[in-house]
Amino acid sequence: MTATVDVDGLDRPTPELDEPSLDRLIAYWNAANYLTAAQIYLRANPLLREPLRREHIKPRLLGHWGTSPALNLVYAHLNRLVSLTGQDVLYVAGPGHGGPALVANTYLEGTYSEIYPRVSADTAGLTRLVEQFSTPGGIPSHVSVPTPGSIHEGGELGYALVHAFGAAFDHPDLLVAAVVGDGEAETGPLEGSWKGITFLNPARDGAVLPILNLNQYKIANPTVLGRRSRDQVTAYLAGHGYEVLWVEGSDVRQVHRDFAAALATAHQAIRRIQHAARRPGGTVTDTPTWPVIVLRTPKGWTGPHEVDGVQVEGTFRAHQVPLAGVRDNPEHLAQLDAWLRSYQPERLFDADGRLAAELAALAPVGDKRLGATSYANGGRRTEPLRLPDRRAYTLDIDPRHRGRVSYETTRPLGELLRDVYRDNPTTFRVFSPDELTSNRLGAILEVTDRCMVAPIDPHDDRVSPSGRVMEVLSEHLCQGWLEAYTLTGRHGLFATYEAFAMVSASMLVQHTKWLQEGAKLGWREPVPSLNVLLTSTCWRNDHNGFSHQGPGLIDTVVPLSPGVIRIWLPPDANSLLSVADHCLRSRDHVNLLVADKQPHLQYLTAAEADEHAARGGSVWDWAGTESQLGRDPDIVLVGIGDVPTMEILAAAQLLRQFVPSLSIRVVNVIDLMALLRSDLHPHGFSNPMFRALFTDETDVVVGFHGYSRGVHQLLHGRRNPQRFHVRGFIEQGTTTTPFDMLVRNEVSRYHLARLAIEFARTTHPGTDRLVTHCETQLSRHHDYIRDHLEDLPEIRNWTWDDSQPAPEPSV
Amino acid sequence: MTATVDVDGLDRPTPELDEPSLDRLIAYWNAANYLTAAQIYLRANPLLREPLRREHIKPRLLGHWGTSPALNLVYAHLNRLVSLTGQDVLYVAGPGHGGPALVANTYLEGTYSEIYPRVSADTAGLTRLVEQFSTPGGIPSHVSVPTPGSIHEGGELGYALVHAFGAAFDHPDLLVAAVVGDGEAETGPLEGSWKGITFLNPARDGAVLPILNLNQYKIANPTVLGRRSRDQVTAYLAGHGYEVLWVEGSDVRQVHRDFAAALATAHQAIRRIQHAARRPGGTVTDTPTWPVIVLRTPKGWTGPHEVDGVQVEGTFRAHQVPLAGVRDNPEHLAQLDAWLRSYQPERLFDADGRLAAELAALAPVGDKRLGATSYANGGRRTEPLRLPDRRAYTLDIDPRHRGRVSYETTRPLGELLRDVYRDNPTTFRVFSPDELTSNRLGAILEVTDRCMVAPIDPHDDRVSPSGRVMEVLSEHLCQGWLEAYTLTGRHGLFATYEAFAMVSASMLVQHTKWLQEGAKLGWREPVPSLNVLLTSTCWRNDHNGFSHQGPGLIDTVVPLSPGVIRIWLPPDANSLLSVADHCLRSRDHVNLLVADKQPHLQYLTAAEADEHAARGGSVWDWAGTESQLGRDPDIVLVGIGDVPTMEILAAAQLLRQFVPSLSIRVVNVIDLMALLRSDLHPHGFSNPMFRALFTDETDVVVGFHGYSRGVHQLLHGRRNPQRFHVRGFIEQGTTTTPFDMLVRNEVSRYHLARLAIEFARTTHPGTDRLVTHCETQLSRHHDYIRDHLEDLPEIRNWTWDDSQPAPEPSV
Repeated sequence: MTATVDVDGLDRPTPELDEPSLDRLIAYWNAANYLTAAQIYLRANPLLREPLRREHIKPRLLGHWGTSPALNLVYAHLNRLVSLTGQDVLYVAGPGHGGPALVANTYLEGTYSEIYPRVSADTAGLTRLVEQFSTPGGIPSHVSVPTPGSIHEGGELGYALVHAFGAAFDHPDLLVAAVVGDGEAETGPLEGSWKGITFLNPARDGAVLPILNLNQYKIANPTVLGRRSRDQVTAYLAGHGYEVLWVEGSDVRQVHRDFAAALATAHQAIRRIQHAARRPGGTVTDTPTWPVIVLRTPKGWTGPHEVDGVQVEGTFRAHQVPLAGVRDNPEHLAQLDAWLRSYQPERLFDADGRLAAELAALAPVGDKRLGATSYANGGRRTEPLRLPDRRAYTLDIDPRHRGRVSYETTRPLGELLRDVYRDNPTTFRVFSPDELTSNRLGAILEVTDRCMVAPIDPHDDRVSPSGRVMEVLSEHLCQGWLEAYTLTGRHGLFATYEAFAMVSASMLVQHTKWLQEGAKLGWREPVPSLNVLLTSTCWRNDHNGFSHQGPGLIDTVVPLSPGVIRIWLPPDANSLLSVADHCLRSRDHVNLLVADKQPHLQYLTAAEADEHAARGGSVWDWAGTESQLGRDPDIVLVGIGDVPTMEILAAAQLLRQFVPSLSIRVVNVIDLMALLRSDLHPHGFSNPMFRALFTDETDVVVGFHGYSRGVHQLLHGRRNPQRFHVRGFIEQGTTTTPFDMLVRNEVSRYHLARLAIEFARTTHPGTDRLVTHCETQLSRHHDYIRDHLEDLPEIRNWTWDDSQPAPEPSV
Repeated sequence: MTATVDVDGLDRPTPELDEPSLDRLIAYWNAANYLTAAQIYLRANPLLREPLRREHIKPRLLGHWGTSPALNLVYAHLNRLVSLTGQDVLYVAGPGHGGPALVANTYLEGTYSEIYPRVSADTAGLTRLVEQFSTPGGIPSHVSVPTPGSIHEGGELGYALVHAFGAAFDHPDLLVAAVVGDGEAETGPLEGSWKGITFLNPARDGAVLPILNLNQYKIANPTVLGRRSRDQVTAYLAGHGYEVLWVEGSDVRQVHRDFAAALATAHQAIRRIQHAARRPGGTVTDTPTWPVIVLRTPKGWTGPHEVDGVQVEGTFRAHQVPLAGVRDNPEHLAQLDAWLRSYQPERLFDADGRLAAELAALAPVGDKRLGATSYANGGRRTEPLRLPDRRAYTLDIDPRHRGRVSYETTRPLGELLRDVYRDNPTTFRVFSPDELTSNRLGAILEVTDRCMVAPIDPHDDRVSPSGRVMEVLSEHLCQGWLEAYTLTGRHGLFATYEAFAMVSASMLVQHTKWLQEGAKLGWREPVPSLNVLLTSTCWRNDHNGFSHQGPGLIDTVVPLSPGVIRIWLPPDANSLLSVADHCLRSRDHVNLLVADKQPHLQYLTAAEADEHAARGGSVWDWAGTESQLGRDPDIVLVGIGDVPTMEILAAAQLLRQFVPSLSIRVVNVIDLMALLRSDLHPHGFSNPMFRALFTDETDVVVGFHGYSRGVHQLLHGRRNPQRFHVRGFIEQGTTTTPFDMLVRNEVSRYHLARLAIEFARTTHPGTDRLVTHCETQLSRHHDYIRDHLEDLPEIRNWTWDDSQPAPEPSV
């Protein structure tokens, strides 16, 4: 689906800002600046209808003034753009520390009072507005989940532009205006985000207009870009492919005039690019030169110029609260009074505390308001994915012959995703750091290409501007694009190497916090979950070496909100399909799916996989001897994750073979968080279910995909958790063979079988032989890998031997 | 100390590359290319003295050919530069996947055989060289710890340039040549690293010469920079402040000639910049325009141009193993044979398998060899820090009046660090994302400035090119600079907000892996530890809100190598000093120091703090009633971390007050990893020590700084760990008050006291009153924070009441 540009107005430039309009615009800006400062300082007397006194001042002064006037300026001009053109605009505030500025604007335009009726458009509401800011029980000081119109938290800096692009993809009618502070511009992720235009197709995607606000200072230091020459900044952005529009100065009227002109120019340029791409026969063969505005204004502009004889405005001293001593220093209080009154609040608000009607008329109406746009409340826009019947992709497993066939576990998922792409041509994307094919999801390329909006070379393989697979060598971009893509109501998957998923772990943490908070707000509709496929896992990065071997994202994610976090470790392809289907339907979750891409044994029929995923864990009776022996197990063996499950099964087979009288139960857990108590996680196994899987007292040997203590922490509070003996990754790796990885980490079948025997606590015939066999095999393994580049053939070719049922009970 | 440039040769350009020299240089390059391919393919017959047969081929073909010829070209030319000028050079291979290239070169120059004598400079050694590559028991396929001359792992991409700058700081005689691949150039951290020159002072620091290798492709996709126009790439780099030298083409002789010229030009430019800065009276007032070389050559250059009718050379298909079917496809085998022989190995190596003498003469000698430079084996260069006596900074604590005085815990550390700066003017730096003063380390600015090599403004505060505090708004840069600074033998500290330390968590993981592997190699000398101060912690980011509240780095780090990881949670300023002193002396560790910057109660005398830190944990008898009551404790209270320790003490005080007959033991743990069993971590408490702290059976209530299950995972395997009831961060946050943070996370004194009563298991008079008191206080708190911006005064002003000793035993 290609959108068309409404060519009305394409050649009709935004009207010039005549003097009366400019007066009104500046008055609107003054109102926003006034309310910004008022939120920082006041807890009463919000319109200064009384003389300002100490008791009107908050006991603790918090907030960031420095960045706010520029944020307010941009907001006012975007309002004008929207009003004049009807353009849908999403405002991303990179300097999100300027929370009071965004709150002020959404209040002025009326959105805030609609969402939070207590903060009404009158003096009582104004009092609540100022008193709630950065107050316990009130609202946070940064742009955050409660801020209307935002999809972007203002705390951890670096993601303004990547979020902007993620929101613009597949939203052809949307313009994302992204303010980037020059502090944030120093972060790696932000510097890496400018290249988003190389993946933005004007025929189908919206536009991103970055507005780089150079106010020259961070908290205590000059900024790097603030100290570069104008030519260097221009070259830097031009090198990224942008056309640079400069707006500079501290003359209020001139800067407003210039910004209005720059914004109109930028908007026209964007529409021209879109028009060219969307007109019949229009094509995109190279990255268009998109506009960027550089706005160089003083930090803390219009605030106190000098405090106690030291310049504040235009310096780092304006970063937070420029007048810190107002409660105890009468001079500061007087200065604050003068500053606040300089905006002439009596002319901005009427007797009832309402914004003057001629100013209120400047804001757009309804959902066109920046604070009310549905793009920032993506759940309102979310359509369920059209998902094909997953049974069309499942492997055909004969329950009489499980674990006999190897298959690349992620390949059927790739086929499912191919058809998800086919059936959802504008609402689904996969993001991957250059690893789609490597991760066996290549079937997707049967229906779409990789996206690159740049000259295409004959040697390129399935790369085009119309491609919908997002491959870029940056986990930050993949993660951030998907975050914004889902927060604005679309669906997707981030498929990546397990170890390098840690690169963007902090973003995942912040996104989890966002979803956790969002779910508490009635007005935010649930959004599609963020799905992360961790593949090329530690156990099968034997060939790549230690740096590629790290299952640590699980440990990073486990402590986060139980309302949001889901961790799935499907043991085979059919269970991965079942889990993926569930995750693609889910809302407001962060789903980690951990499944390796290499060939692995396959166990479950489609129906079994569905049931297994729904339960979170099951007894695999076919692999144990408990039923045949007809007595409680001597030992429970548990596999969690594909490779450890294979080792658990191989250990079970060794035990069946050598110690046939041992009663074994084999369990598989697919839903890691189910190990938590059900009062701690919605997926937690109930006590009866936990008992049904693991008994009450029997020892349990666990083969786990990740760091072993990750399981122990989940089991605390369960009955007798010391009986759980977990073997997992213990940070031993190198370039070696798959089986050697298991041996180094002491989680091989031989280790697990020995452990099971050790903890079975009863003596059975065959025990000694089994122990000897395990030691012999480990010793053979060590010899073999010295001479070969592959694992012992009998290990490599191991399959589950279903011809060897457990013997009849001997009693 | 300012280094002087050896002006010899400053105006004497590197001699032009005459034709015989060019022939030799290309022959050397051929030898490196040959050995690179040989490592990927061969396990025998390394010089093709026999016809190439299937059995000479490795069973599994691994490695990355595509990037290797360019890496080899750069190496050969750097050799020439070093030989001609004596310049010390450190080679950072950003495309570190090209491991065989770097191994080949260090072998050719002789370093490899010196370090690994089995891989000798003869045919037997060559056989070992090829057979060990990417082989179990052999060496990894990427540049990694075993690679001589490297400080930079080639797995997780993005850090080549940040490591280069970190190595160059305070190494005035060093040139770091950093090859950046155009794949890696897409990562955020790499894009963020170019600005390193704004922090590089040519008067005292070495130089970084980035060499951007545009081979246009990643694994499966074109690269973004590869598809930009030459003008755009030039503008991009010029915008970052560089002068761009282009070398392009596929004509072997011409590219070599051009590269030699570009390298000579770059080197001259660097020396001119240094000379200007270092001559008497020379100053630096702006970022010098440093050179960068852009080398655009075909991917997999000199390899098979076409395979099975499809072009490989110059495309993404050359990324890894360009001829994959050589074991089973005779045509491929023949093509490999022809490819390898195209380098004329018979002319490169003599009959004994030694590199031809006229080629061997091209390499530098001794420690000037890139593989032998001491800069890449920083332990060889490490001098112990001159550390002042920490007693000069300790707070004077009267043991009769503990916990009565509040003090900013990190402030005395700042004073210590100030004097560390003073006494170690070229070997110590603190790195911080614009938070030095905010984190109360501002005393450092009494002796040095913040570093910025850019125009300084009168409003700047303690900013200058000669400043030695590294503040930049990028955790990636702070972390990466410090990694390289320590790996090249210097000392430092990364001080950062706890929550945002997650931004660079993956780098910390990779650095930990590096140290773990390095400690196994006899030839790598121990290097200074990487010290990370996590301050502005979750409990005291009440004012900043939820995004700033995250103690997750602990969970990320805990599972890593016990040989490397140390996690310290000093409860007060004196213990922080003691721990910091220890960490600054330590080697090969990653030390996390978790201590908040806000005012906190102070408890320990300097001597006690030292003893406490050395033990890892102690009974704080003064806070319990066990001794007075003269019987075993009914409950053990444990504080881990500053804020939870205060709450534990306050809970103890409540218990003493309300339930005087209760026998309480109060314990503080400062060394988190000591909770692990001593067979699992070198710091683990011995069983007797564990018992002496926690008893065998008594219930233990723990107030923990981080996520509570982080403690549970460590306790698995300890005696009866279910008796440990841990309260910590449970991911509940917002903008609120310090005490409310504790209430939301159920770790307040009232929660802890109730928990202690619940688990004390005996009934004592006063229990009910205590429970009622706790509930009343929590309810008052909820009411109070609705009306105030601060905590209840009696909570805010709480101190330890030492006037209230426990009563005499009642029996």
